[in-house]
Amino acid sequence: MIGRLNHVAIAVPDLEAATATYRDTLGAAVSQPLELPEHGVTVVFVELPNTKIELLHPLGDGSPITGFLEKNASGGIHHVCYEVDDILAARDRLKADGARVLGDGEPKTGAHGKPVLFLHPKDFAGTLVELEQV
Amino acid sequence: MIGRLNHVAIAVPDLEAATATYRDTLGAAVSQPLELPEHGVTVVFVELPNTKIELLHPLGDGSPITGFLEKNASGGIHHVCYEVDDILAARDRLKADGARVLGDGEPKTGAHGKPVLFLHPKDFAGTLVELEQV
Repeated sequence: MIGRLNHVAIAVPDLEAATATYRDTLGAAVSQPLELPEHGVTVVFVELPNTKIELLHPLGDGSPITGFLEKNASGGIHHVCYEVDDILAARDRLKADGARVLGDGEPKTGAHGKPVLFLHPKDFAGTLVELEQV
Repeated sequence: MIGRLNHVAIAVPDLEAATATYRDTLGAAVSQPLELPEHGVTVVFVELPNTKIELLHPLGDGSPITGFLEKNASGGIHHVCYEVDDILAARDRLKADGARVLGDGEPKTGAHGKPVLFLHPKDFAGTLVELEQV
């Protein structure tokens, strides 16, 4: 069912410093910061030949990554995102298998303008999993 | 400097259950478990079209992931691995930038039989980074 690894998201306490680390120290191509107020984050995309790393920093009040950064002051890997062809079919299969979909179970429009869902970490080896329909 | 994302490693408390989750619930192709006593882990490879997920479980005494699983009882993302062309050149550039290389700074033979190094999470946005020469 799952296809490509779309991205790995890393929550960071200092977006400028993390961007410099990936650009200057690791020598990767990085984007300009992109504010996504509807998702409560500012994101910098690190472009690798086969996938992306997304550096996430809280934006505004009630950002979904604030709690994570309180627990992980230096930052850390926040989630992985796998691509699916049909997000509703994927959701229904997962629910039939007993996996928990976060929120109300309806896909939202993700950071790339495509439908996404998040799955409960306890059902996926302690890992927050995003599914994105591509 | 860094190239492809070689893999994302997820430490799991129950390798059979995590393998079943990726195979049956997420519908991915998974390998048989492979014991790597010299690395203190048993690994299952999840093959995605563009990269791999590696499910790691402790093997033997003093496994390098035992402490991580004590802190993350449900499992969690342990590290990311980026490919480099020349690991000694990469190491020297990183050290010149002030980044800390773990251990004695000499590459070891990694789980894929290739030279690897690990970098200090505090220097890389809270993320344990493995470099693998390909």
